[in-house]
Amino acid sequence: MPDIPLNFSRAEYAARLDKTRRAMESAGVELLVVTDPSNMNWLTGYDGWSFYVPQCVIVPPHGEPLFFGRGMDAVGARFTAWIGEESIIGYPDDYVMNPAKHPMELLAQILTDRGWGRPRVGVEMDNYWYTARSHAALAAGLPDARLSDTTGLVNWQRAVKSPTELDYMRKAGEIVTAMHARILEVVAPGIRKNDLVAEIMATGVRGVPGAGGDYPAIVPLLPSGREAAAAHLTWDDRPMRAGEGTFFEIAGCHHRYHCPLSRTVFLGKPPQVFVEGEKAVLEGMEAGLEAARAGNTCEEFAGAFYAVLKKHGITKDGRTGYPIGVSYPPDWGERTMSLRPGDRTVLEPGMTFHFMTGLWSDDMGLEITESLVITEGAPELLANVPRQLFVKD
Amino acid sequence: MPDIPLNFSRAEYAARLDKTRRAMESAGVELLVVTDPSNMNWLTGYDGWSFYVPQCVIVPPHGEPLFFGRGMDAVGARFTAWIGEESIIGYPDDYVMNPAKHPMELLAQILTDRGWGRPRVGVEMDNYWYTARSHAALAAGLPDARLSDTTGLVNWQRAVKSPTELDYMRKAGEIVTAMHARILEVVAPGIRKNDLVAEIMATGVRGVPGAGGDYPAIVPLLPSGREAAAAHLTWDDRPMRAGEGTFFEIAGCHHRYHCPLSRTVFLGKPPQVFVEGEKAVLEGMEAGLEAARAGNTCEEFAGAFYAVLKKHGITKDGRTGYPIGVSYPPDWGERTMSLRPGDRTVLEPGMTFHFMTGLWSDDMGLEITESLVITEGAPELLANVPRQLFVKD
Repeated sequence: MPDIPLNFSRAEYAARLDKTRRAMESAGVELLVVTDPSNMNWLTGYDGWSFYVPQCVIVPPHGEPLFFGRGMDAVGARFTAWIGEESIIGYPDDYVMNPAKHPMELLAQILTDRGWGRPRVGVEMDNYWYTARSHAALAAGLPDARLSDTTGLVNWQRAVKSPTELDYMRKAGEIVTAMHARILEVVAPGIRKNDLVAEIMATGVRGVPGAGGDYPAIVPLLPSGREAAAAHLTWDDRPMRAGEGTFFEIAGCHHRYHCPLSRTVFLGKPPQVFVEGEKAVLEGMEAGLEAARAGNTCEEFAGAFYAVLKKHGITKDGRTGYPIGVSYPPDWGERTMSLRPGDRTVLEPGMTFHFMTGLWSDDMGLEITESLVITEGAPELLANVPRQLFVKD
Repeated sequence: MPDIPLNFSRAEYAARLDKTRRAMESAGVELLVVTDPSNMNWLTGYDGWSFYVPQCVIVPPHGEPLFFGRGMDAVGARFTAWIGEESIIGYPDDYVMNPAKHPMELLAQILTDRGWGRPRVGVEMDNYWYTARSHAALAAGLPDARLSDTTGLVNWQRAVKSPTELDYMRKAGEIVTAMHARILEVVAPGIRKNDLVAEIMATGVRGVPGAGGDYPAIVPLLPSGREAAAAHLTWDDRPMRAGEGTFFEIAGCHHRYHCPLSRTVFLGKPPQVFVEGEKAVLEGMEAGLEAARAGNTCEEFAGAFYAVLKKHGITKDGRTGYPIGVSYPPDWGERTMSLRPGDRTVLEPGMTFHFMTGLWSDDMGLEITESLVITEGAPELLANVPRQLFVKD
């Protein structure tokens, strides 16, 4: 029994495990090795900044999931996960950053000792935290097992959110609303970019009444002027300048659940390209939000937005959004569906998306976005920030 | 030519490339695929929060390194890296989060087209950002190449810091000094953990005169009481309590260069275990710092510390430190040497370490640490925080 209160009921964790086992059966695997920290958290509640060493949750053919991690992180699992002491396995510290031995060799031995050396094993081949060496070590240690790729298997089970998950995401929405309000209070020509980031981070971590802020999976992104064409630059300590647009791509986070939301601020009189961009994006968003309802597909949702952009002479056909929920660095996306042409996944009530309606050209970037919950009718918006280009002198 | 000023001279980047090519020759590889964002930054200057999609720097047999990344991140490379336009390759957005196609397949094709399809290729098998799938895709796309594991090859070249790198780390040291000063100002029974984190983060990002703060590769860790036995728990929104010890494991960061430093605060009268722990650690640190000089080995450095602990009845033999420098999430360590028995690497002037002298038992954690530069004589300490257990009522 963990010392820290669980974020979800035991019934909810049990339902998640059932759902995952059904998906394993469909995928033809008997044992799952889960290295994505978001999936580890979703299955067991485990929460810690320990993903820089090899660790995983095992979903065995029967019984509780197992936590396998560094000894000191096994202590963290006892505090945060619902699983019992006998399901928590810590490995010795000389496995850490040691080219001569790899934790996955030990895991293979442990699985074999438990009689699970020969099953069909699913591994997350394309997850950040499952390195090429981890895979090689596990495969070599389980010569009689059949390993197959189950990247995204657990992520897909997370798509429809429970009432408690939605509550946390609404809190994250309140937090990101407060963060944008703070930006508008303090942004002005002359303020250094890093001082603005300090305000954003502090507001996000303080949170709102009843909900402290957690760390978002991505740091604030806020490139200005021409640099806004490069979507993933982080900040420096140069002052904000009049005559430049800056987008703020940030998220509120509560109990590791995210609500991303972007807005753009122009200091001074915005040039025509911003004014026209705003008009096209807002009109496109109305159309997208209208199509964002249960029964439609991801591509219909995206297509409604793109059709309006096209009317405005803007051709865009990449990804215009992705599912969100529980996450860890480096990404707050759920890495399953994409709001783009070709994705025919049918939207269901309780799915949650960041409708990421950014426009980037060679010398500017404009982001005005919403995060939402799919319902049978109009989507529920998680945050409450005026949907516009902000202009400040 | 990047629009943002380079953080290092072109001569320094050229020297880094030379050094890397010599190490490649020793390792018997002709072409290097570098996926560690810290290594990518060190070789080219590239800086962006884009490591959540596959990307890499290629060190080819001759000529400039190449940047290979998502199209919108190629824009970021133009802004931040010293390499020319012809060395920056962006891949189309439909390669992003698409199970049907992988960016590494495209990279293999590009390498083949450039006549580099058959060489001996080094890959970072155990780096976070080189997934099992990335490796499988690259290997399949280069059937005539010989792939070998060069995890850490570039990291090792980074061990001895240049004067400019040391300048940035000293600034990071000033920043972490300011962060700890702020903690002591505001910590008290009743303050919520997340409000304390807001202060820490804001102070770190604001930085010090002449040096704005960058985001550290790890968020602040500050577990209290029994939870401090679990080293990697992050914060919640419960208030700090009298009668508990809390360690603060944080880092200052400037231009991606880190200075980690931990201190412990006890609210109220510390129990004997803290008082004795402090005494043992401080005495051990004196001995360790005495041994931390050019010509000695990593294990001699660690051994001097452990010998004193043993005298105090504390047996510890894991890792008590690691090299530091430029880094990205999830870890600010350099992942080469370890301050522990068995590591016989000889210390050289200009190497930089976090002397991570944490003590954790079943129900407490005490961290009092230093970050330092190896010299011929006594090490240079990067931060300036009184070395003690802080007690506050």
